[in-house]
Amino acid sequence: MIAMGGDIIGKSLRLISFGESHGEVVGAVIEGVPAGLPLSESDIQRILDLRRPGQSTFTTQRSELDKVKILSGVFRGFTTGAPITMIVRNEDINSSYYSEFLRRPRPGHADYIARVKYGGYNDYRGGGRFSGRMTISMCMAGALAIKLLERMGVEVIAYSLEIGGERARNFTLEEAREYRYQNPIRAPNKDSYEKMSQVIEEAKKEGDSVGGIVEAIALNVPPGLGEPLFDTMEGDIAKAMFSIPAVKGIEFGAGFEAARMRGSEHNDPLTIKEGKVIYAKNDHGGIIGGITTGEPIILRVAFKPTPSIAKPQTTVDLEDMKEVEIRIKGRHDPCIVPRAVVVVECMLAFVLADHALRAGLIGNVLG
Amino acid sequence: MIAMGGDIIGKSLRLISFGESHGEVVGAVIEGVPAGLPLSESDIQRILDLRRPGQSTFTTQRSELDKVKILSGVFRGFTTGAPITMIVRNEDINSSYYSEFLRRPRPGHADYIARVKYGGYNDYRGGGRFSGRMTISMCMAGALAIKLLERMGVEVIAYSLEIGGERARNFTLEEAREYRYQNPIRAPNKDSYEKMSQVIEEAKKEGDSVGGIVEAIALNVPPGLGEPLFDTMEGDIAKAMFSIPAVKGIEFGAGFEAARMRGSEHNDPLTIKEGKVIYAKNDHGGIIGGITTGEPIILRVAFKPTPSIAKPQTTVDLEDMKEVEIRIKGRHDPCIVPRAVVVVECMLAFVLADHALRAGLIGNVLG
Amino acid sequence: MIAMGGDIIGKSLRLISFGESHGEVVGAVIEGVPAGLPLSESDIQRILDLRRPGQSTFTTQRSELDKVKILSGVFRGFTTGAPITMIVRNEDINSSYYSEFLRRPRPGHADYIARVKYGGYNDYRGGGRFSGRMTISMCMAGALAIKLLERMGVEVIAYSLEIGGERARNFTLEEAREYRYQNPIRAPNKDSYEKMSQVIEEAKKEGDSVGGIVEAIALNVPPGLGEPLFDTMEGDIAKAMFSIPAVKGIEFGAGFEAARMRGSEHNDPLTIKEGKVIYAKNDHGGIIGGITTGEPIILRVAFKPTPSIAKPQTTVDLEDMKEVEIRIKGRHDPCIVPRAVVVVECMLAFVLADHALRAGLIGNVLG
Amino acid sequence: MIAMGGDIIGKSLRLISFGESHGEVVGAVIEGVPAGLPLSESDIQRILDLRRPGQSTFTTQRSELDKVKILSGVFRGFTTGAPITMIVRNEDINSSYYSEFLRRPRPGHADYIARVKYGGYNDYRGGGRFSGRMTISMCMAGALAIKLLERMGVEVIAYSLEIGGERARNFTLEEAREYRYQNPIRAPNKDSYEKMSQVIEEAKKEGDSVGGIVEAIALNVPPGLGEPLFDTMEGDIAKAMFSIPAVKGIEFGAGFEAARMRGSEHNDPLTIKEGKVIYAKNDHGGIIGGITTGEPIILRVAFKPTPSIAKPQTTVDLEDMKEVEIRIKGRHDPCIVPRAVVVVECMLAFVLADHALRAGLIGNVLG
Repeated sequence: MIAMGGDIIGKSLRLISFGESHGEVVGAVIEGVPAGLPLSESDIQRILDLRRPGQSTFTTQRSELDKVKILSGVFRGFTTGAPITMIVRNEDINSSYYSEFLRRPRPGHADYIARVKYGGYNDYRGGGRFSGRMTISMCMAGALAIKLLERMGVEVIAYSLEIGGERARNFTLEEAREYRYQNPIRAPNKDSYEKMSQVIEEAKKEGDSVGGIVEAIALNVPPGLGEPLFDTMEGDIAKAMFSIPAVKGIEFGAGFEAARMRGSEHNDPLTIKEGKVIYAKNDHGGIIGGITTGEPIILRVAFKPTPSIAKPQTTVDLEDMKEVEIRIKGRHDPCIVPRAVVVVECMLAFVLADHALRAGLIGNVLG
Repeated sequence: MIAMGGDIIGKSLRLISFGESHGEVVGAVIEGVPAGLPLSESDIQRILDLRRPGQSTFTTQRSELDKVKILSGVFRGFTTGAPITMIVRNEDINSSYYSEFLRRPRPGHADYIARVKYGGYNDYRGGGRFSGRMTISMCMAGALAIKLLERMGVEVIAYSLEIGGERARNFTLEEAREYRYQNPIRAPNKDSYEKMSQVIEEAKKEGDSVGGIVEAIALNVPPGLGEPLFDTMEGDIAKAMFSIPAVKGIEFGAGFEAARMRGSEHNDPLTIKEGKVIYAKNDHGGIIGGITTGEPIILRVAFKPTPSIAKPQTTVDLEDMKEVEIRIKGRHDPCIVPRAVVVVECMLAFVLADHALRAGLIGNVLG
Repeated sequence: MIAMGGDIIGKSLRLISFGESHGEVVGAVIEGVPAGLPLSESDIQRILDLRRPGQSTFTTQRSELDKVKILSGVFRGFTTGAPITMIVRNEDINSSYYSEFLRRPRPGHADYIARVKYGGYNDYRGGGRFSGRMTISMCMAGALAIKLLERMGVEVIAYSLEIGGERARNFTLEEAREYRYQNPIRAPNKDSYEKMSQVIEEAKKEGDSVGGIVEAIALNVPPGLGEPLFDTMEGDIAKAMFSIPAVKGIEFGAGFEAARMRGSEHNDPLTIKEGKVIYAKNDHGGIIGGITTGEPIILRVAFKPTPSIAKPQTTVDLEDMKEVEIRIKGRHDPCIVPRAVVVVECMLAFVLADHALRAGLIGNVLG
Repeated sequence: MIAMGGDIIGKSLRLISFGESHGEVVGAVIEGVPAGLPLSESDIQRILDLRRPGQSTFTTQRSELDKVKILSGVFRGFTTGAPITMIVRNEDINSSYYSEFLRRPRPGHADYIARVKYGGYNDYRGGGRFSGRMTISMCMAGALAIKLLERMGVEVIAYSLEIGGERARNFTLEEAREYRYQNPIRAPNKDSYEKMSQVIEEAKKEGDSVGGIVEAIALNVPPGLGEPLFDTMEGDIAKAMFSIPAVKGIEFGAGFEAARMRGSEHNDPLTIKEGKVIYAKNDHGGIIGGITTGEPIILRVAFKPTPSIAKPQTTVDLEDMKEVEIRIKGRHDPCIVPRAVVVVECMLAFVLADHALRAGLIGNVLG
């Protein structure tokens, strides 16, 4: 079967991702950015640093600086309207043990199916295009989108809502905003940080891993973004979120709980506050009929546990065509959720910026 | 703000939806269909009849035959390679009470936000483009996609997994396949049918509504469909599902439960059966790294309770700019889930057919 | 080989064409139209009437009223932001003699290659999707685009510049604007009308046909539309023009003559007029670097002679696999150019409206 | 006005161009390339070298090696199915004299309109995104497309058909194929080389420039590529050609001459040769109804004379808002046509490869 691409996302703002985990670079072209936005490498670096590995015992010890370099589209500190290309070089690479997985594909990883799909031609080293390192290109685009959204007063906040079954409780949005990047777990408050740390540590000790849930909120989103049928705001956000490796589910507002509510309970009444029409509560999660209502967008994204675990696992030796046991060495995150938080923020920002551009909102802000 | 479209979905196979709930027609253009597929109006009608209202006490009593007419793209019983246009005329229309909602938007509906987005120019009658009737165009495309998939041996099955908190249990796939369209609830077995019926009846009696969860399974999907980064199979399916009104969440395989599992528990071991590599279990839901693995695709879609309820609700009178109480008359489904089942099937089939065409699989099957 | 679509054009404004020459309808969905534009069937009909056959001895005697019907997207006289669907029913159909061409494909027509491409499944009657009747959908979209452009003060004017080698001379733009739709040839002045009529009559008498050149001008186009690399204004206009059957070439400004000019002669100096920067002349044809300069866009489109001619022609009998002579009966235009004039106008208007929407210009005009 | 992108071309095979003339790099991402194609930097370099400047007195003396570097998508000498990123560093840069053109825009260049469109934020140095150096990204994609086409036996040949009014005559395709890259003018035979050289030399001596026409031919193109309505083969080729700076017109087969022919003269009769249906002549240029017929594709592209000339020219000083005379220094091609020949070849190859992929042809060849 031939490869069919799928490396471009967005309509008015487009992100093209390129690069491989153990190739020369990971990078992005971001196309459709209006001219006149102040942009520097440090704007991007600030976001990349939030996903960088090696910053705590909870993440892989692969230690890379992931220094971004802007190759095009920025001139004298401002975007020019031309495509913006950014790269990060891959540095701390040890591909030696990956060739084993060609023959003995890791459960939970795409090793086997990639081999089938690409006829063995894919760059399997470090997971290639299936690696979590591909989220670097998402952060590049997200950093830019965040800057565009700032012009409109839109803010995006994500945090680890739940890890290994430990769910954060009793926190305010203000706490989460402040605290999430002050702790390596990206928990929204101290209490949840401690409980989540413990559950990760336990799994790690046993050579195992845990999953979790990221919650993301977008504040001050203008009403009217998104389209009724196929380019719904939920649909476009969902598609973007499933680009992040390990995502298994997404829900908006009351989400799956809505399925258990009565209509009289779930419907959010309209009311008036300071002369403006608003919703009395926000079980709809800021989107109705595919369109933003002006209430905060609220969503949750479920991540599976990291598939790379030290514990022995059963797989198939594709040459001998028999079952074998493998143990995965190397440096892996016992939980991917903490590092995924900023990626969720970035992809949410990207989709919002895309829709805002499409609606002509950002051009006006810049112009 | 200007309207920005969003009425087209798909890459190799494209569905363009048109029409309004109380306009002249609801219809679809389906573009990119290979020449040589046998297709008749009865192929489409069979599917449309499964979503048609007025078939039981559980659904709205709006009684329309929803007879499909093919306007283009079919010649002497076969598709020609040209765009296929289909329409259904809107017949049992009573728009009289909708003008009230212009002034007093219904909670849980898009009345208010549509007015904001379209500056008051939208066709609000019957919900216009936000109506559940828009799923007719999805069924048109789905019926065609199902025929394309049949050529590849792919089967898509959906059913009401949970309604009003009542979850179906102890059923086999064979039961669900047989039973789901033999009962108006689309429950997978008799036991769940009875319990779900009861919970809907109770809500209806109280002038209220309930939500639920649809589970969908695709069997015999070829491995290798979907792309690693942005056109992941999950992402494309998710985007398609959020096109269906009232959807609030989606999950694949173990879904949100995966977030509470250990890696050692969630990873699906590879093994060998009859000389072929397969997965020993299917917590991944048939997709890894965005790509189909050959295992059945399994997903669940959460629906909120029908927003139209007889119970009094609070909203805003937009002319007087004050809170008012409204009661929604008219014929509404106390639970939208039973009629959504076939729509979920259709959109899943559509996305699979799109990816199969993209990969060149269906052309070969026909050619 | 499978069919791959190609029935959608435009980025921000999208035209989806459907229907066949001798099928039930010819139609269009126009997607991405802002809400709030006044639109009636007579707005569309006015344009359709300009391409309608049977209006003079210079065009085919197929006599159809081609009455347009709007099926969706317009409510109470205004566009709603939803897709606008329009159809025209095919009426004066006589398909009986077309089955001959299945076996003995007409030279200059797509009969043979369509059979190859679609494996014999295409609707060959009346040329099917290859018929000049498909330009009805272009006129539908063009009529709408013209209305959008009017809001911006943009005017599009086309006329028969040359027919059968007779080139119009010594006319002013004002003359052309007035005169072109007052004569069935769409000539820009009386002198050229008479000469062109004669050359068409002569060809017709001999059972032959002639080609020609349409010139189109867009006035008052805002500067800055079009993109430097791949979505150049010339490129997008050219792609749209080659959608019109029988087009063999296109040139902008000085066009092919520019290839014979010196730089010092071709370069248009910038100068100042009434305090504004303008170009002293317009050999560039209103576009430099892919972007509109504010000068009138000027282009010429070359049409081949109508391939359907009464004279005997050589082709192949595909069953006997031998050369045969055929004579094409039926009602055909001895020159397609007069009826193509309004189609050129429409496609030029469509591309300009698409780019204006993309640049956010039309939304502001309406909003 | 905001920038709206336009840096992506292609449907199944996509080229994303990035970089600026005097920025850090010029580059391309090529997306949708099947896995398993042998590809090395020398495959790309070979084509880049054919457009490289400084190779004769007929081209600019800017001397850059333009060494390509592949950053992603190739592993162990084969494409992987992932996006292929390539860059060339800009080396021999002297931007000092370009700031003058900000204030005093050059006639025939996009200086003025770019300033208007991008609000002064564009990277104007060396023409930025409007520079002929952007064709490097086209050659990168073209080199790859040529390799894909080779697998199908398709060959693309272009040459300078006419320069400064000197038209090549009495050459065979075989001559052109051999001779074109053996002479710096890319003339198809010795006689035309000498005449064209002379006309360029004369213009150069006078501080002037000349334009010309490139003819391109694609041999052995499979029948059936291209779509009847909007993705016609002519339309897609035309759009691609207008991406090349300085192009003012394009024609296929008999082209503008067809407008002066009778139908009986222009129609190409079908006939039989060695048991296969072919066309007795090829005035249609290998495409009918938007679809390739199997005959050679023949097209001609008109280039205006290089706008940068030494002769004094009139323009406007945008600060003083008065007319001024400028003289353009720097190293410029007295005729751009010779260097454009390989770019025409590349863009033609790109469009053909895109359509072949879309039709599923290349996947089969590789698989």
